[in-house]
Amino acid sequence: MSTGRGPSRNSERIVLGNRPLRNYLLDVVLALNRGVDNVEILGKGRHISRAVALYNLLHGRLGDSLHLDKVEIGSVHEKGRRISYIRIVVSRRII
Amino acid sequence: MSTGRGPSRNSERIVLGNRPLRNYLLDVVLALNRGVDNVEILGKGRHISRAVALYNLLHGRLGDSLHLDKVEIGSVHEKGRRISYIRIVVSRRII
Repeated sequence: MSTGRGPSRNSERIVLGNRPLRNYLLDVVLALNRGVDNVEILGKGRHISRAVALYNLLHGRLGDSLHLDKVEIGSVHEKGRRISYIRIVVSRRII
Repeated sequence: MSTGRGPSRNSERIVLGNRPLRNYLLDVVLALNRGVDNVEILGKGRHISRAVALYNLLHGRLGDSLHLDKVEIGSVHEKGRRISYIRIVVSRRII
C-alpha cells in the first residue's frame, strides 16, 4: 500500500476495517521499520474510536520514539452519506 | 458546567455520554452563544466516534464561523483500565 512517489512523499496509509487491532498495529510497526517518513492511520465512522485505540497501542509499544505528527478530523461524502473520519499521522522519532 | 475562572479560562467542557447527539449539539451552540472563549468536546472509548460526528454536525450548522482550535488524542487510566479519548476544542470565529 506504499505510495512511494519519491523521497518527498514516502508515506503509507493504513485504513481501519474489521480486522483485529493487533493486525493494524503490526502493519504500522512494519511500515515504520521499513523506514517510511510517516504512516497515516485513517478511521471512518465507527472505526474512528478504533483508530485512536490503535494510536494508544502504538504509543504503549513504541513509547517516546513514536511521534504524533498530526490529527485531523472531518467528513467526506460517500455513497450519498456524510461520513466522519479521523486521520492520525505518526512517524518514528530518533531518540 | 462552565469553569468560569476569569477571562483567561473562559471555557466550557462537554463530555459525551449516551444522550442523542442533538442534545450535545445544542449544549455547544448555547455555550458559544453565551460568549465562552472555547468549548471542549470530550469523548472517551466508544464515544470518540460520536465526538467527531458532533464536530461535523456543528461544522455543518455553523459553517466557517466555527473554528477548530485543537484536536488531541491520548489515553487515561480509569478504574484500572486504559481508556482512549479525544479532546476537540472549538471556538466561534468572527467573520
